[in-house]
Amino acid sequence: MAGNTFGTLFRVTTFGESHGGCLGAVVDGCPPGLKLSESDIQPDLDRRKPGQSEITTPRKEEDQIRILSGVFEGETTGTPILIIANNKDARPEDYKELSKNYRPSHADYTYELKYGRRDWRGSGRASARETLARVAAGAIAKKYLSERFGTEFLSYVETVNNVTARVDDATVTLQQIEANIVRCPDSNSAARMIELIEKARDEGDSLGGIIRGIVRNPPAGLGEPVFDKIPADLGKAMMSINAVKGFEIGSGFSCVGMKGSQHNDSFVLDDKGHIRTETNNAGGTLGGITTGEDILFRVAIKPVATIRKKQHTVNRQKKPVILEASGRHDPCVLPRAVPIVDAMAALVIMDHYLRHRAQCGEVKK
Amino acid sequence: MAGNTFGTLFRVTTFGESHGGCLGAVVDGCPPGLKLSESDIQPDLDRRKPGQSEITTPRKEEDQIRILSGVFEGETTGTPILIIANNKDARPEDYKELSKNYRPSHADYTYELKYGRRDWRGSGRASARETLARVAAGAIAKKYLSERFGTEFLSYVETVNNVTARVDDATVTLQQIEANIVRCPDSNSAARMIELIEKARDEGDSLGGIIRGIVRNPPAGLGEPVFDKIPADLGKAMMSINAVKGFEIGSGFSCVGMKGSQHNDSFVLDDKGHIRTETNNAGGTLGGITTGEDILFRVAIKPVATIRKKQHTVNRQKKPVILEASGRHDPCVLPRAVPIVDAMAALVIMDHYLRHRAQCGEVKK
Amino acid sequence: MAGNTFGTLFRVTTFGESHGGCLGAVVDGCPPGLKLSESDIQPDLDRRKPGQSEITTPRKEEDQIRILSGVFEGETTGTPILIIANNKDARPEDYKELSKNYRPSHADYTYELKYGRRDWRGSGRASARETLARVAAGAIAKKYLSERFGTEFLSYVETVNNVTARVDDATVTLQQIEANIVRCPDSNSAARMIELIEKARDEGDSLGGIIRGIVRNPPAGLGEPVFDKIPADLGKAMMSINAVKGFEIGSGFSCVGMKGSQHNDSFVLDDKGHIRTETNNAGGTLGGITTGEDILFRVAIKPVATIRKKQHTVNRQKKPVILEASGRHDPCVLPRAVPIVDAMAALVIMDHYLRHRAQCGEVKK
Amino acid sequence: MAGNTFGTLFRVTTFGESHGGCLGAVVDGCPPGLKLSESDIQPDLDRRKPGQSEITTPRKEEDQIRILSGVFEGETTGTPILIIANNKDARPEDYKELSKNYRPSHADYTYELKYGRRDWRGSGRASARETLARVAAGAIAKKYLSERFGTEFLSYVETVNNVTARVDDATVTLQQIEANIVRCPDSNSAARMIELIEKARDEGDSLGGIIRGIVRNPPAGLGEPVFDKIPADLGKAMMSINAVKGFEIGSGFSCVGMKGSQHNDSFVLDDKGHIRTETNNAGGTLGGITTGEDILFRVAIKPVATIRKKQHTVNRQKKPVILEASGRHDPCVLPRAVPIVDAMAALVIMDHYLRHRAQCGEVKK
Repeated sequence: MAGNTFGTLFRVTTFGESHGGCLGAVVDGCPPGLKLSESDIQPDLDRRKPGQSEITTPRKEEDQIRILSGVFEGETTGTPILIIANNKDARPEDYKELSKNYRPSHADYTYELKYGRRDWRGSGRASARETLARVAAGAIAKKYLSERFGTEFLSYVETVNNVTARVDDATVTLQQIEANIVRCPDSNSAARMIELIEKARDEGDSLGGIIRGIVRNPPAGLGEPVFDKIPADLGKAMMSINAVKGFEIGSGFSCVGMKGSQHNDSFVLDDKGHIRTETNNAGGTLGGITTGEDILFRVAIKPVATIRKKQHTVNRQKKPVILEASGRHDPCVLPRAVPIVDAMAALVIMDHYLRHRAQCGEVKK
Repeated sequence: MAGNTFGTLFRVTTFGESHGGCLGAVVDGCPPGLKLSESDIQPDLDRRKPGQSEITTPRKEEDQIRILSGVFEGETTGTPILIIANNKDARPEDYKELSKNYRPSHADYTYELKYGRRDWRGSGRASARETLARVAAGAIAKKYLSERFGTEFLSYVETVNNVTARVDDATVTLQQIEANIVRCPDSNSAARMIELIEKARDEGDSLGGIIRGIVRNPPAGLGEPVFDKIPADLGKAMMSINAVKGFEIGSGFSCVGMKGSQHNDSFVLDDKGHIRTETNNAGGTLGGITTGEDILFRVAIKPVATIRKKQHTVNRQKKPVILEASGRHDPCVLPRAVPIVDAMAALVIMDHYLRHRAQCGEVKK
Repeated sequence: MAGNTFGTLFRVTTFGESHGGCLGAVVDGCPPGLKLSESDIQPDLDRRKPGQSEITTPRKEEDQIRILSGVFEGETTGTPILIIANNKDARPEDYKELSKNYRPSHADYTYELKYGRRDWRGSGRASARETLARVAAGAIAKKYLSERFGTEFLSYVETVNNVTARVDDATVTLQQIEANIVRCPDSNSAARMIELIEKARDEGDSLGGIIRGIVRNPPAGLGEPVFDKIPADLGKAMMSINAVKGFEIGSGFSCVGMKGSQHNDSFVLDDKGHIRTETNNAGGTLGGITTGEDILFRVAIKPVATIRKKQHTVNRQKKPVILEASGRHDPCVLPRAVPIVDAMAALVIMDHYLRHRAQCGEVKK
Repeated sequence: MAGNTFGTLFRVTTFGESHGGCLGAVVDGCPPGLKLSESDIQPDLDRRKPGQSEITTPRKEEDQIRILSGVFEGETTGTPILIIANNKDARPEDYKELSKNYRPSHADYTYELKYGRRDWRGSGRASARETLARVAAGAIAKKYLSERFGTEFLSYVETVNNVTARVDDATVTLQQIEANIVRCPDSNSAARMIELIEKARDEGDSLGGIIRGIVRNPPAGLGEPVFDKIPADLGKAMMSINAVKGFEIGSGFSCVGMKGSQHNDSFVLDDKGHIRTETNNAGGTLGGITTGEDILFRVAIKPVATIRKKQHTVNRQKKPVILEASGRHDPCVLPRAVPIVDAMAALVIMDHYLRHRAQCGEVKK
């Protein structure tokens, strides 16, 4: 298999380059009968689009998508859904200079090593602009899961550099997340994060951070051991996003300091006699299968590689050069990465719902 | 696709239950002409097998495998390789009592939720005993990569609970790793780790920790963006291992506190005029493609769920019960998890080598 | 993907060589809760096994299989099912001489060309003995489909050389098919076929023929356009069987002589007001999707390549040689191929049932 | 996997409906460095497009495609290639009436049965118009194989109804095939075929026939036993084309009347000492692997289901109705199906070339 398709049954194939003619996705395997129009997708794209606030790249793209197949009379038909967005504010000439150099911590060097060439216009296919297509496809999955199971995807920015928010994951709402431009539902922390980002921007530098991922009310019983466990496929989904350096589920790396007697989540009965776990160190899965508890995870995102500060590097002729970035970029991608994390999580859950239904029939819970 | 196959071209399908008749794997897609016998595989299995030291489970299994197809006159033929091991010290009756209860933080509850039943004999398919098959398959990949590229897989135990080793990742050797039963090449730390594990064992409790993963001298140019990036497939591979809660590559979660100007790895020229990076915060990949630098990652492993201490839980009749574990188990799985991490990493690299060769021809570096 | 796995959700991976230690299959993705034991599988294997009558190869193999994983307390658990059969009457030494020559119309030459070597013991992996594993896996699919939908698989030998049976496909029964050793439900034709086969055997020659495939009462709505149509996947399934040279569905090649007005199957209503087609030139699918009408197809099988007559060929040193076959073989494989055709058809239908259920929910008809 | 993707490494995903906004394909996995522009693809599309002669449908579509990603500075980059064509002469209103009825031998009924709805505009996704995308993708594969191996794809119309051409498959050229509008290189037969087709058209009826498929100079050693043999994947490819009812390779169904001693292809040495076969009943593969001899096959295509003559059928309310076709259609699709057969054959060979290279390295012959 080539690497531009995600999912086994709800299959998303993305295409397009940052400064080429268009970007988009083909979504194959969507259940028929889902009401779907561009307006179901656009809001998520608006959360990802550039130029949405003063802390994001000034590139101006409306990222307006069109659905060109697979929907008829307002409903999905079960055939491939083509979603496409044209690039409008493409300025490939901004990158001409960069075509000769290998930017540090970018994909320039490895694409050329692998393929013997590269589309140097704004990183081409390696640009995070590709995630536009993921967000569009993810919006379809989110809609389906919301309507059928009431599942919500509620990622937010938890940490920027040295500022970490305090948030109640059990009650946080989309409205709270969207209340500020940094997408951190703790308004005090949000203010400090914005301050940090603006400072980094002004210094020509960049910042990393952590996105907290929440899947609230996921269907129970999803996951295909032994390899296609939910944590494995979620991990892959997140690690495939540009700039992601780490993934953890439930207790994550903090499990290291705990004993089994502290870490184990006791099974208990809730008011309605349903089986629940008292704690959720597991993060919503056991043996790789969803319990029905919220899926909780974290994604570490590195500081953007593109900075204005001077950097040492080498060029295609293997000569040392000093680089000053041109092109437009974000000082901190986390606010825009929130809908990407949600989208990838939704693609994983949707695909696993279909996989579960194939082998085991409808989900019971 | 069902969930018991890993890889797209070097495909490993595992089968078998902890206390069933056998465990094993079918490896399809192996290049022909690799010299292969049981003795190439057994050493890795011996690193994983139970009962190898006083800090592992006392279950006695020799884990002797046989190769029953795909090898002829001492070489692989290009046809499926069947590797199988019989269970010898299976004691399903030990688990009879457990068949009625849902053990905390085990897969009992979710398997039953998903499949409507479960093989309760020693966790059946959900047991980490399944990883025997992964280690066996991984040994084939390791041999191929070692012979062809000189690639080495050098994972070790970096942290147990609150003890973290100091190791030079650039020079650590397999011999150093194997120098003690905890597989930590820092002997001082190793001694403290063993002490901690013995204490936990005596208390009927368990400990977690971190495995440092190293792939030394990987082929350059591997990885299939945008979804099947090396960090994504490595992440999936590691997150699919029992008890793993987190994965990070390169700087990982520590990238959060860094600025772009600190985090970026400058390209430089080495003595031979080859392009290298001055630092390796990337962890050996850029844009999801290997640079040729060592691949460095970490895997967080939770404290084993099976403990002797009393625990509250519920049974199949949805009644609260108090559980005292029987069965045999490890107080800390990390020493035995080291070869599993190596094996999964080898499967990822091997598969991606074949994928790269398919699209782009032989690797150049 | 490597080539030894069939199906996307009901996945069958086969392994083993003709004169190696064993043959078998891993079946992954089987729905949980199917009652299953060796006795459900053995009858189909007995229809395929060598030595069952005087018109088949005299090799003596009981082909007794064991189920070694994936079944617990008599039911499938949803985990991989390992089915294995040991070779007992293997006589690899019979083939030593053949290791030097390329037998005409065998796979000796191409395996060596592709893989740089070959397991020459009885054709190794290229032997039709591999189909044992397919029949075993198909028996599971047949059982599931029979219990859930009353689907029957009723292939029979329609033609041997110049003798073609007359059979009413709408009413033919398994009992009629099994009434004679050639598996042709028209007893007059069967007698003549047997005579022909015995004559060919005595002459040291071999015969080909046609197997009629019937899937009675298939679930309606199965098939995944545009590529994974039922005729496409059935065609692939049949063309993957050793010695098969042609496949047709419904009217097949005879459609060539018909006009649209003759070939079209009018929709009509049956007694119960259900939609049916008046004729079935389609062979049970429209647009690649099952209508619910019986699926009707034909498979052309060449005369066995192994004959006792002298043949001209070349050896590994590229020298012309004259070959006299040794080894044991069938003068006409069709009687033994009947259960293989049924098995492959069942694997296709089963896989597509799961695929349909994934995207569209339960079948309606 | 959803059913709109073909191939495992050279992966083609098609999208679009007959009277929707566009049709096209994403081609993922193409080797980098292939010179590619629209002008490499358009000629094949022109062979398939409607309105190209008086014996094809009068629908006017230029079928002009654009390449919107995956090509940079005139060469493939190794990233997904998006090819898209807009529909221009769409007249969905022509089909409004048909939305209520199930046309005989069309996919109307089964799509509705499967998906609970259908895009009734010109058969939507089930229209053969989808094959435009296959031809476009196939053109890329053809170009690559031609440049690298000198492989040619030389399908032609061999039979229309009761007229069968006489052609020397070893020497036939593309020029001869393109010499007339029916794409039959035997000019006498071609004239009679055209006459038959015009007569059928005037009667409001339709005709079927046979396409002869030829792959000249294929790479040797391709094919992935035991399931993904070349005949199996070619068979699937052809059976997935609209209106195809049968497939055979080499001797095909005529093998039935032959004895083994007649059917076997003796190995011989040619003038250069290379191993060849004296005859080619095999059709270019042994054991599912290409020998290097030409691949020869046949595809049976039914008379088009759309005819002007009155037909009995039922409607969505399960009432009998009489149907008179509207919409525009071909009286015989074979001339336009020739490039489709070539394209699908090229996709199979290309995909298997990459698969072979992955496991076994470069082809030797």
